[in-house]
Amino acid sequence: MSKTEVTLGIDIGGTNTKIGFVDRAGNCLVATSMPTVAPVEVGPAEELSLFLERLYQTIEKTYASIADTTELKGIGMGVPNGNYYKGTVEKPTNLNWEQYVPLARILQEKYGIPAVLTNDAKAAALGELKYGVAKGMKNFLVVTLGTGLGSGFYVNGDIMYGADGFAGELGHVTVKVNGRMCGCGKKGCLETYVSATGIRRTVYKLLADHTEDSPLRKVSFDDLTGEMITEAALKGDKIAIEAFEYTGRILGLKLADVVAIAMPEAIILFGGLTRAGDYLFEPTRKYMEQYIMGLYKGKVKILGSGLVGANTAVLGASALIWNELDKRQLQPA
Amino acid sequence: MSKTEVTLGIDIGGTNTKIGFVDRAGNCLVATSMPTVAPVEVGPAEELSLFLERLYQTIEKTYASIADTTELKGIGMGVPNGNYYKGTVEKPTNLNWEQYVPLARILQEKYGIPAVLTNDAKAAALGELKYGVAKGMKNFLVVTLGTGLGSGFYVNGDIMYGADGFAGELGHVTVKVNGRMCGCGKKGCLETYVSATGIRRTVYKLLADHTEDSPLRKVSFDDLTGEMITEAALKGDKIAIEAFEYTGRILGLKLADVVAIAMPEAIILFGGLTRAGDYLFEPTRKYMEQYIMGLYKGKVKILGSGLVGANTAVLGASALIWNELDKRQLQPA
Repeated sequence: MSKTEVTLGIDIGGTNTKIGFVDRAGNCLVATSMPTVAPVEVGPAEELSLFLERLYQTIEKTYASIADTTELKGIGMGVPNGNYYKGTVEKPTNLNWEQYVPLARILQEKYGIPAVLTNDAKAAALGELKYGVAKGMKNFLVVTLGTGLGSGFYVNGDIMYGADGFAGELGHVTVKVNGRMCGCGKKGCLETYVSATGIRRTVYKLLADHTEDSPLRKVSFDDLTGEMITEAALKGDKIAIEAFEYTGRILGLKLADVVAIAMPEAIILFGGLTRAGDYLFEPTRKYMEQYIMGLYKGKVKILGSGLVGANTAVLGASALIWNELDKRQLQPA
Repeated sequence: MSKTEVTLGIDIGGTNTKIGFVDRAGNCLVATSMPTVAPVEVGPAEELSLFLERLYQTIEKTYASIADTTELKGIGMGVPNGNYYKGTVEKPTNLNWEQYVPLARILQEKYGIPAVLTNDAKAAALGELKYGVAKGMKNFLVVTLGTGLGSGFYVNGDIMYGADGFAGELGHVTVKVNGRMCGCGKKGCLETYVSATGIRRTVYKLLADHTEDSPLRKVSFDDLTGEMITEAALKGDKIAIEAFEYTGRILGLKLADVVAIAMPEAIILFGGLTRAGDYLFEPTRKYMEQYIMGLYKGKVKILGSGLVGANTAVLGASALIWNELDKRQLQPA
């Protein structure tokens, strides 16, 4: 019997690292998760070599259950600050790794199969292209709404990497010249308004400005999460709904700029905050339409992610390597 | 003796239509210009058929002088609202043409050689790539500063056309939500600040706000041109210099957004206002650097056009068709 071809998708997040083995059709045959940093009571964050040791164990244990029936073709990874061109992770924050880790080469040498990496938002875009709502599209982008705001642009039928592999930092376009302080050192960046962190700040501003009662008044800033705000909105809390309206207005304004520049077929919103549904999508659509020029009005779809289940990030990482394997096959020998 | 291969570049502007025959190396062997709309004392603007008649005469008369020594391979056109994908000019303003003119097909059938068109800013980008300062680059953009502001993005080694051929409308990203009225129906578009028209508005605002004497106080709004403001700045006029500073600040702010999104190697400024030199380039560079995130600082060059002489727009249109001819040669038969 011929074996099913699979790829290994790895999503390295700030908190958890997820891995999964995915076939060509996008079925995740087996998946698991491990903490990105090993829990230590005292002492410095884990070194790269120890992380890799745990990662290899996790990969091998997980693959064991399907090793007899599958053939592993390659490895794709989504990593914050991942540089597709060089296969490196550069200046990773929150990790006690070296400044430039050649992670693609390390995995490729370890397992003797092709390995590629990119950042998480670009992997998500490839996931939507291969398995989600962007099938067949040549021009679209994915906006990931997590702790920060990331984006992956697909232009002319390929991911837009820019001159050095780091294009797509939509989280750091300027909304307001003297606006909210951003972790990047600038002020007024889009992700200080539109992200889980951004909407927390908006909720606190609204709680300060208004007098309405709200369950969110009982939660400290440090304890407040995007999930709580989403839940509150879905239950009709006025402050939470107003926070989503404000978030959508700013996102819509900047997406109108994106449309003027890149004229995508669709913009796909991805991540936890999208669970708020119309509370987020309606104002985003409304204000985007308001701020785009006549020629473009009504032409650009704003969609929710088409990736389902718990393994969306793994599917994106897997799509990256499937894409790469297909490209290499097309190359003349 | 073998004949020199040439292409015909046509730049259709609101006022003049320029044509020229260009060899592969970018030498414009012969060129001329005609009014886009025939001068008529009374009556409606010229119809398309009459424009074409004049165009054909101009082309044939001009080509006659080099017909014996050259072989004409194709026709490239830069046209406002030109759609590369369809070869059409859509809803041309200021012209009494039909709403959708299949101009590429018309020229192709008339002369029996390939003809393509795009808008003028995208043609300028291809001109810089082939003959100017963008040689060898894979990711850059050209910003054209004329009556309006246009842009042509080159991404992953190809012009970014977007879903419908009209990507690159950088002139219509929003600077200020309730800012200056724009001809497109929106408010606060970039081109209402950064363009020949935009800097005229800025000069009038500065003349209203300040009391300094200036030769520009003697010129009516309708008579004022970008050229006059440039001349005044070069002669040290404070109002004109301040107007360029303001223009460069707004341009720098929005180019920082462009860098976050597309991470180009270089941004090339093109058009009459660039004659002001450092009065425009210095504030543009300074504010762009100020508004981009740390990762990108110092990495993106802002350059002046590398196309010289009177025929820059013709060179761009010619580069478009050379590019197309090269692509077609690469296609499998």
